[in-house]
Amino acid sequence: MELLKQRIRRDGRALNEHVLMVDSFLNHQVDVGLMRAVGEEFARQFAGCGITRVMTIESSGIAPATMTALAMGLPLVVMKKSISSILSEGILQTEVHSFTKNSSYQLTLKQKFVAEGDRVLVIDDFLANGEAAFGAARLVEQAGAQVAGIGIVIEKAFQPGHQRLIEAGYRVVSLARVSRMAENLIEFVDE
Amino acid sequence: MELLKQRIRRDGRALNEHVLMVDSFLNHQVDVGLMRAVGEEFARQFAGCGITRVMTIESSGIAPATMTALAMGLPLVVMKKSISSILSEGILQTEVHSFTKNSSYQLTLKQKFVAEGDRVLVIDDFLANGEAAFGAARLVEQAGAQVAGIGIVIEKAFQPGHQRLIEAGYRVVSLARVSRMAENLIEFVDE
Repeated sequence: MELLKQRIRRDGRALNEHVLMVDSFLNHQVDVGLMRAVGEEFARQFAGCGITRVMTIESSGIAPATMTALAMGLPLVVMKKSISSILSEGILQTEVHSFTKNSSYQLTLKQKFVAEGDRVLVIDDFLANGEAAFGAARLVEQAGAQVAGIGIVIEKAFQPGHQRLIEAGYRVVSLARVSRMAENLIEFVDE
Repeated sequence: MELLKQRIRRDGRALNEHVLMVDSFLNHQVDVGLMRAVGEEFARQFAGCGITRVMTIESSGIAPATMTALAMGLPLVVMKKSISSILSEGILQTEVHSFTKNSSYQLTLKQKFVAEGDRVLVIDDFLANGEAAFGAARLVEQAGAQVAGIGIVIEKAFQPGHQRLIEAGYRVVSLARVSRMAENLIEFVDE
């Protein structure tokens, strides 16, 4: 998505080979006009896939996922990051490890907000190792629903998440695929 | 806002005098069409107030605040809930106590995402004691900006937050004001 890549080139900042700061338009300050374009692009890419529900993980996925659900006319479900595991009827949980933060959380979903037979589009702001996306997929599948697609705003294509998800059979659409970073350098995968 | 009150009557669930569950349309599953209507209503109510920036607190405020910023054509800034205090240049923090969760967090904002002279509209999903709203206002004011309004989706009008904010000089608009709850009973302030 050219508009997004231009914005990353202009306002993103690579601190080093691994850390990309995009907090001026994606995950602290949010350009909602850009998020609307992102949502419309996901709606276009996943049109005709029979999606019935959009899901995301709190909290940086919420703005792009809200716009995607709006563009597709579908309900949104926000999976929660819980510190402790909850033993309660109707609650699905799975442990997700964040390499970025070097900590784990219990990804949490009330089962009643996903129906058997649902075809779910999972939206997230970043894809690196794929731990969060796999966690979301586990919860969707535990509920008897199906992951019909995974939509990522920015992918660190030099990390293994995309390849791992593809090998597991998921369809992944990343709107910007960063191939290489260094201090003040951001390169994209040629597409 | 009649549409919102109808939805709370239909799908909200009072567990007792204090706890209102609205997770089927506001803070776990999200009805983005309703959120768009909420955003448009805030835009209407705060039109002509010279608002320059919309702010909210992660994570349940993000969907309504995204729609408000979209309706107003303004940038959104999402204040973060940090567990630990960060000593870093350009970071503003203030401690906020949540009575609901009986815990505290450091509400966190990068100073560069609010400019001196900004007129900020603070949006949040719930107002009860007002602790989160006062915390947001402290950060906005520390940055040399002004809180031009506080927009709340659902207010527990039987708790003191609204009155405290009014007494402190803030303009508060709550789209649904719940006056009383009991098991399976939800009443609104007559307006």
